[in-house]
Amino acid sequence: MSDAPEFGKVVVFGVGLIGGSFALALKAAGEVGEVVGFGRSVGTLKQALDLGIIDRIGANPGQEVADADLVLIATPVGQMPEIMARIAPYLGAETVVTDGGSTKSDVVAAARAAFGDRIGQFVPAHPIAGAENSGAAAAKADLYRERKVVLTALPENSVLNVARVRSAWEWCGAQIFELTPAEHDQVFAAVSHLPHLLSFALVHDLAVRDNSELFFTFAASGFRDFTRIAASHPEMWRDIALANRDALLIELKRYEDQIDEMRAALEASDGQRLEEIFDTARRARRAWQASQK
Amino acid sequence: MSDAPEFGKVVVFGVGLIGGSFALALKAAGEVGEVVGFGRSVGTLKQALDLGIIDRIGANPGQEVADADLVLIATPVGQMPEIMARIAPYLGAETVVTDGGSTKSDVVAAARAAFGDRIGQFVPAHPIAGAENSGAAAAKADLYRERKVVLTALPENSVLNVARVRSAWEWCGAQIFELTPAEHDQVFAAVSHLPHLLSFALVHDLAVRDNSELFFTFAASGFRDFTRIAASHPEMWRDIALANRDALLIELKRYEDQIDEMRAALEASDGQRLEEIFDTARRARRAWQASQK
Repeated sequence: MSDAPEFGKVVVFGVGLIGGSFALALKAAGEVGEVVGFGRSVGTLKQALDLGIIDRIGANPGQEVADADLVLIATPVGQMPEIMARIAPYLGAETVVTDGGSTKSDVVAAARAAFGDRIGQFVPAHPIAGAENSGAAAAKADLYRERKVVLTALPENSVLNVARVRSAWEWCGAQIFELTPAEHDQVFAAVSHLPHLLSFALVHDLAVRDNSELFFTFAASGFRDFTRIAASHPEMWRDIALANRDALLIELKRYEDQIDEMRAALEASDGQRLEEIFDTARRARRAWQASQK
Repeated sequence: MSDAPEFGKVVVFGVGLIGGSFALALKAAGEVGEVVGFGRSVGTLKQALDLGIIDRIGANPGQEVADADLVLIATPVGQMPEIMARIAPYLGAETVVTDGGSTKSDVVAAARAAFGDRIGQFVPAHPIAGAENSGAAAAKADLYRERKVVLTALPENSVLNVARVRSAWEWCGAQIFELTPAEHDQVFAAVSHLPHLLSFALVHDLAVRDNSELFFTFAASGFRDFTRIAASHPEMWRDIALANRDALLIELKRYEDQIDEMRAALEASDGQRLEEIFDTARRARRAWQASQK
C-alpha cells in the first residue's frame, strides 16, 4: 500500500453523469477509500455498482454521512432540500458537504435552512461539464479534466473545508474558480440561461405559426447553430429558469434594452450604429473563441 | 462535339464565391459556351481567369450584355442598382438577367427602377449557400449541389424566362423553390436575419460591461453555438439588416412579444407555461433537425 487516500469515505447522492464521474475520477486518482451511493432509482444504483462507480449502495443516509469525509449531492437542484434535511442531523463533525447544482443562491438558501448553524460544513460548487448524455453509463473518470468548477464558498466555511472541496475537484483534473453565489448566478444567467431562453423563444415563435413549415424549410446553418440549445431538456430548463429567476429577470431586462437600442437604430436606418454594435460583438466573439484552446 | 450548350454566352458581374461557383457549375455541366466576367477588382478578375472560372474579362458591359443569353449579378446588393442602370439600355431582346442577392424586395425595386418596361427580363433569385469563405478562390463547381435556390418571379416575367433561370440553377445541382419577394424577405428575416441580430446583441451586451472578462470566462458550449453567428461580417450584416429593414422590424416585434410572454411567465414563476414553451420549441427543433439529411 502507498499513501492513504485523501478521502476515506465519500457519499454520493445521485450517481449519474455528474456524481458518477466525480466518484470515478477520485478512484482513478487513488484518493478515495470507499464510495457509497444513494439515488432514487435502484436500477441506476445497481448499474453504478456494476460499473465500479460506487462500492456500495447506501441504505440509511443518516448513518452513512456520520462518518463520511465528503458528501456530494449531485441530484437535480429540486431534490436537494429534502436530501439536506435528511442528512443534516447526522453530519459528522469533520464531514464536508458539497453539491453539483448549476444555480447557487437557491441551493445556498436551502442549505442554510437545512444545516442551520452547521452551514459552515457546506461548501457549494458548480462543476461545468456538458450534459449531452446523462446517467451512470455516461459517467467517466476524465469528464472534469481541464473543465471549470466554480466554488461559491460561504462566509461560514472554514479555510480547511473549502480547501478539502477544492482538493477533491483538483483530483478530478478541474480548474477551480471562486465566486460569490450571487456573482455565479448573474454570470450563468447571462452566458447560459438567457441564451437558452432566447433560443427556445425563437423556435417557439416559428413553431406556433400557421405556416411554420415555410419558415423551417429555409432555415439554414445560422439557424442551426443559434437554436441548437432549443433542443435542450424542457423540465431541466424550467427548473433552472425558476431556480435562477431573479438573476435571469435582470439579465433579460438588460437584453431587452439592448434589443430596443438595436431596433431604434434599424428604424432610423442608422447603418453606422448597427455596424458599431455588430463590430464590437464580432471582435469580442473572436477574442473569446481565440481564448478557448 | 455533342449537343450545343443551353447557354451560349453568360455574363457574370462579381466573380467571387457566388458568381464564380455558378460559372464553374455551368461549365462542369457543359451548358455554357462562354463566360465573360466583370468586377471591381482587376486582381480578382485575373484570378478568376486563371482559375478557369471565366473565359474573358469584359471591358464594356453594354456591349457584352447585348448578345448574352444570361446575365448573373452576383455582387453585394448595394452595388446592384448601378450595374442594372448601366446594362439596362443595352439588354438584348432575348437576354435574361438574374441575381444572387440575399434580400429580394429591395433588389426588385432597384430592378424596376433600372429596367422599366423591360422588367420582365429580370428574374430575381437567391441561392442559399454558406459564406464561410468568399472570393474567386473559394468558388467551386459543386457549391450549389443539393442547396436551395429561391426564385422570386415577378408578374411580368414570361414563363420562358423563369424557366431559363430555373434551368441554369438546376444545372448547378440546386433544388429550386418559388416564393414572392415579400414572402422571401419575411422568411429570411425570421430564420436568418433576426437570429444574427439577436446573437450580435447578446455578445455586444456582454462586451460593453466593465467586468465582461468575468462573463466570458464562464461562457461554454451553449454560448458558443448561440453566438457563432455573432462573428459574422459587420458590414455585410449592416447591409442585409438595412436592405430587409421592414420585414426585419416586423419579425423583431414578434420576437419581443414572445420574450415578453416568457418574461411574464418567469415573473409569475409559472413553470408550467415555461415548460410548454420550451417543450414546443424542443419538439419543433428536433423535427427540423431530423428533416435535414
